[in-house]
Amino acid sequence: MQSYTHHHIVIMAGGIGSRFWPLSTPEYPKQFIDILGCGKSLIQLTVDRFRGLCPDENFWIVTNQAYIDIVKQQLPSVPESHILAEPAARNTAPCIAWACWAISQEDPDANIVVTPSDAIVMNPEEFRRVATNALAFTAQSSNIVTIGIRPSRPEIGYGYVAMLPEAVAGTEIHPVSQFKEKPSLDVARQYLSAGNYLWNAGIFVWNARTIISSFQQFKPQIARQIAEMVATGDTLTLFPACEKISIDYAVMEPASQKGMVFTHPADFGWSDLGNWASLYDKLEKDSHGNASVGPVRFFDCQDCIVHAEDAQQVVLQGLNNYIVSEKGGRFLICQRTEEQQIKQFSSNI
Amino acid sequence: MQSYTHHHIVIMAGGIGSRFWPLSTPEYPKQFIDILGCGKSLIQLTVDRFRGLCPDENFWIVTNQAYIDIVKQQLPSVPESHILAEPAARNTAPCIAWACWAISQEDPDANIVVTPSDAIVMNPEEFRRVATNALAFTAQSSNIVTIGIRPSRPEIGYGYVAMLPEAVAGTEIHPVSQFKEKPSLDVARQYLSAGNYLWNAGIFVWNARTIISSFQQFKPQIARQIAEMVATGDTLTLFPACEKISIDYAVMEPASQKGMVFTHPADFGWSDLGNWASLYDKLEKDSHGNASVGPVRFFDCQDCIVHAEDAQQVVLQGLNNYIVSEKGGRFLICQRTEEQQIKQFSSNI
Repeated sequence: MQSYTHHHIVIMAGGIGSRFWPLSTPEYPKQFIDILGCGKSLIQLTVDRFRGLCPDENFWIVTNQAYIDIVKQQLPSVPESHILAEPAARNTAPCIAWACWAISQEDPDANIVVTPSDAIVMNPEEFRRVATNALAFTAQSSNIVTIGIRPSRPEIGYGYVAMLPEAVAGTEIHPVSQFKEKPSLDVARQYLSAGNYLWNAGIFVWNARTIISSFQQFKPQIARQIAEMVATGDTLTLFPACEKISIDYAVMEPASQKGMVFTHPADFGWSDLGNWASLYDKLEKDSHGNASVGPVRFFDCQDCIVHAEDAQQVVLQGLNNYIVSEKGGRFLICQRTEEQQIKQFSSNI
Repeated sequence: MQSYTHHHIVIMAGGIGSRFWPLSTPEYPKQFIDILGCGKSLIQLTVDRFRGLCPDENFWIVTNQAYIDIVKQQLPSVPESHILAEPAARNTAPCIAWACWAISQEDPDANIVVTPSDAIVMNPEEFRRVATNALAFTAQSSNIVTIGIRPSRPEIGYGYVAMLPEAVAGTEIHPVSQFKEKPSLDVARQYLSAGNYLWNAGIFVWNARTIISSFQQFKPQIARQIAEMVATGDTLTLFPACEKISIDYAVMEPASQKGMVFTHPADFGWSDLGNWASLYDKLEKDSHGNASVGPVRFFDCQDCIVHAEDAQQVVLQGLNNYIVSEKGGRFLICQRTEEQQIKQFSSNI
C-alpha cells in the first residue's frame, strides 16, 4: 500500500476536438461529451478507468482555463488545487512538465501516469493490470514506459513505437528502439506484419524524479520556466512563454535514444476516438449498418453514424454512408468519406 | 364605401400541415409558420393580402380550438369574437357554414370572401383587384365566385374548374361548367392545352344570403345544425355532430349544376404551398440550385431545400436533391423524391 499512495494520475484535457464539430466545439470539446451515449463523458470514463490505482485525491487535470468550470462540474472528486488551468495551449510538453513539477512539490516520491482524456478503453480491468505493471516498473527504475497498443489494422492515423523482442526479465515490458511518426498505408502494413510495432497511445508512466530530470536534460529551458512557475505561482506570465512542443519531441525521442524508454504491449480495446470512423467502429450497428446515439430513426439508410446530443428527434431517409452530428441546435450532415473536411466547415463559420 | 363596410374575410386555419413535418406539427402547423423566411407566417401574409378590402374588424378566423392562442398572438387586430374555435375538424363545409352564419347574424348584407390560410400570392395588388371584382359581382347577384388560377404547368396536385369561354358582360367573370378532381398527368396536360381549365384555389366569394340559402338547399341538415349552434352558442355539442364534408362536395358541385357558380380567372402568383416541391419553386436558389431558409451552409450540395426554424446552424455536405427540415430541435432529412413519405414518418413517431 506504500506505493499506492504515491501513484498520481495526470489527465490532459486541453484539446478542442474540432474534428467532431458541432458535437464537439471549442466551448465544450469532445472530452467533456458523452460521445458513446453511455451516460458518462470521455473524461469521466477516463477517471473511472484509473479508480483504485491511487487515492481519489491523487488525480490531476491539466486543461485550458476555459474548461475549468466544466471539469469541476464533471469531476467533483478531483481536488480543486489539482485542476491546472492553462492560460494558453502549449502542446503536451509544458502541460506535462507543469503537472509533474506540481506533483513533485507535494510528493517527491510520486510515481505518475499521464493520459489523454478523450481515448476509450473497452476492457478497463486489463487496462488497470497493465498500468499497475508499468507503475511497478517505474517505481524501481529511472526509465519511462509508454503503453503500446497491439495494432489490429494498418492504421495511418497513429504514431508507432518499435520494441525490441526481449522483455525485461520478469516483466511484460520491452525496450523501445524507436518512435515512428504516422506512417503511409504501405509502411503501416509493414509494421503490422513485422509484429514488433505498437500504436503510441500517448499514455506515459514515470516517476517524478525521472520526468523532471528528463526535462532538465532534454529541455532545460522548459524545466527552468516550469520550476519557477510552480515556485512563484505566476502561471499567467510564465506558462505562455514556454516553447510549444509535444512531449514526444521534447522528451520521448531524445530519451529513447539514450535507451531510457520502454513499452508495455497491451490489448485492452483502446481507441483514441480521434475521428468519426473510430467512433463508428465502437458503436453498435443496426442490421443496415447504422450507428446512432440519441433519438434517431432511420428509413432506407445504410452505414450512417448519427450523434444527436440535444435534438428532440432526428428522422433520416435515404442516406448512405453519412455522418449526422448535432449539439445545441448546430447540425452537420457530411459524407463519411469527407470527414477530413469537418475541421474546415467549423472554422469557416 | 357602403359596400366596403359589408365585406368580410373568412380565413380557414384548421389544417395540421403534416406534409411539412417537423417544420409543421399538429401543435404548431404550417399556416402559423414563417415558411418563406420573410418575417411573417402564412396566415399573417394572408391577412395582409386582404387589408384595405374591408375594415380590420371584418376578419374572421375559423380554426381548431388548439390554435386559438396562436391566432390571438399572431393576429392581434382580429376581434376575439371573430375567432371561431372548432372543437373537432369537420372539413370545410361546416367550418364555412359556421363563419357565414355568424357573419350574417352581425351583418345580413355581408359580402364574403372565404380563403385558406396557408396559400401564398406573389402579387397581392393583383390579388386585391381580382377579389374586388368578385365582391362587386356577388354584391349584385346570388351567385358564387370561385377564384380560378390560370395554370402554368400540368399540375396533378390541384382540382380544376372548367369555365365557359364567354365572360359575363362587363366583367372578367366566366360561368363554371364543371368542377374536376385532381387529374392524372395526361388529363392535366389536356386541361393545360385546352386553355379553359383553371386551378381551384379554394377561394370563394359570395354574399351571406347566397351561401346560407345554398346550404339550406344542398345540405339542409348542416344548415339546421349551424343555425341552431349560432343561435344557442352550443358549439361543443353541435359542431362535432355536423357531417364531415368539404365545401366542394357540399355546395360547389350541386350549385354548379344549377348554373350558380362562376370563376374569375386570375394570375397573381398563387401557390398552395402544399408540399416541399411548391415551396422549393417559390424560394430563391443559389447557383447550385439550393434553396434555404435559416442559418444554412452548403458544401458540394445540389438542388436541396432546407428550412431550419430554430437551429443555430446547419452545415450540409454532399447532399443532392434532399429536403432538410427543422423546428424545435426536431430534424428531418429526406430525399425530395420521397417527400410523400413524410406524413408517415411523423405519424410513426
